[in-house]
Amino acid sequence: MKTFEQELSHLSSLITDMGGMVERQVALAAAAVRERDADAAEQAVKADREVDALERECEQFIIRLLALRQPLAQDLRQIVAALKISGELERIGDYAKNVAKRSLVLAHLDAPFATAGIGHMAELVQENLKEVIDAFGAGDAEKAAAVWRSDEAIDDIYNALFRELITYMMEDARNITSCTHLLFIAKNLERMGDHATNIAEMIYYAARGEPLPEDRPKGGAAGYAPGAEERP
Amino acid sequence: MKTFEQELSHLSSLITDMGGMVERQVALAAAAVRERDADAAEQAVKADREVDALERECEQFIIRLLALRQPLAQDLRQIVAALKISGELERIGDYAKNVAKRSLVLAHLDAPFATAGIGHMAELVQENLKEVIDAFGAGDAEKAAAVWRSDEAIDDIYNALFRELITYMMEDARNITSCTHLLFIAKNLERMGDHATNIAEMIYYAARGEPLPEDRPKGGAAGYAPGAEERP
Repeated sequence: MKTFEQELSHLSSLITDMGGMVERQVALAAAAVRERDADAAEQAVKADREVDALERECEQFIIRLLALRQPLAQDLRQIVAALKISGELERIGDYAKNVAKRSLVLAHLDAPFATAGIGHMAELVQENLKEVIDAFGAGDAEKAAAVWRSDEAIDDIYNALFRELITYMMEDARNITSCTHLLFIAKNLERMGDHATNIAEMIYYAARGEPLPEDRPKGGAAGYAPGAEERP
Repeated sequence: MKTFEQELSHLSSLITDMGGMVERQVALAAAAVRERDADAAEQAVKADREVDALERECEQFIIRLLALRQPLAQDLRQIVAALKISGELERIGDYAKNVAKRSLVLAHLDAPFATAGIGHMAELVQENLKEVIDAFGAGDAEKAAAVWRSDEAIDDIYNALFRELITYMMEDARNITSCTHLLFIAKNLERMGDHATNIAEMIYYAARGEPLPEDRPKGGAAGYAPGAEERP
């Protein structure tokens, strides 16, 4: 029989594995959009089943852990955070799958727009994902807070992309369908960034027992007009 | 000191209250879009803080419950489901807030499009939300499965709306900005429906100890082209 410490460490590695898998899925989805790589798109879609399976494994492991040990205080907060984080990761994977699927549709359309911006957003999302998973592994509340703050850069690119894509649509009606898909891809990436900040909040709370003290800076906070979606 | 039964029933009423609050929030957001009612929009935005507060209350109550009682088997599954459901409800509330905010932007634009379809989608989302919360209260797996199946109708309206809005954009470039906001509003409603099906899956699993046996029917399953976002 394993010790409780060993079980907590197994839980931590389940989350880390899941994070790594989702990170790769995001990279594949971004390559699919940037390089019209149908192969990468299919791999990103397929990876989603593994991510879902890992989420279920986490949940079952956590339920067993709660039933057999009676964890208290910080351990309990940590375990509940792991459950919620696995849900957030599953959601990010889901968005990556959606991006990959849209890239397959885009491949049939003439859409040379905004792929640099989307590539840049995807890189930042991957970076934040990596950092936040590292912060989880290390129980590092400060590192989590840094990820949370840096989401603003992703929002800024999203807002710029939104405006850019609208102008392409206005210039030529033939761009509308492809730019709409690109808008949704950009929005999906922006949401992935939001989910990474949710994870950061959970890590902070699990480590400190209190929520992050600040209001998150919002990219393009000046207005809702550019289409930015806000998280509280 | 309360009995464990009383505590479980308190948890159940927390979720039910949260569900009712989110349902009202969706109704307000829909009214804001349909009737350009800035007052309803502001109420929907304001309600989000209460929803967030209820989610935190749920989480804290659950952590206490896990620490003090050592619930097992179905009770434990039920409690973990409640934690996850409160997260899904918070997400739906978030989307409702986003819809309300966009309605304020739309009020300044000339956008007489698609509001009937959006109103219809919102009604179906409210109905599914109500049904799924009832299913939770009653622990009724069959009722949950029915909600899960009926999400297809919401997807169908979304796909029709998507096509409709694209045509308005193509007809006149001056429609592009407002139709893009309407597209995101429709997408937000479609995602709310998805979150209601997630809740249905959680209720089914908590009650039966196994996942829903079928693959969910997808509205407009024929293609990804219309912009439908899929959940596994």
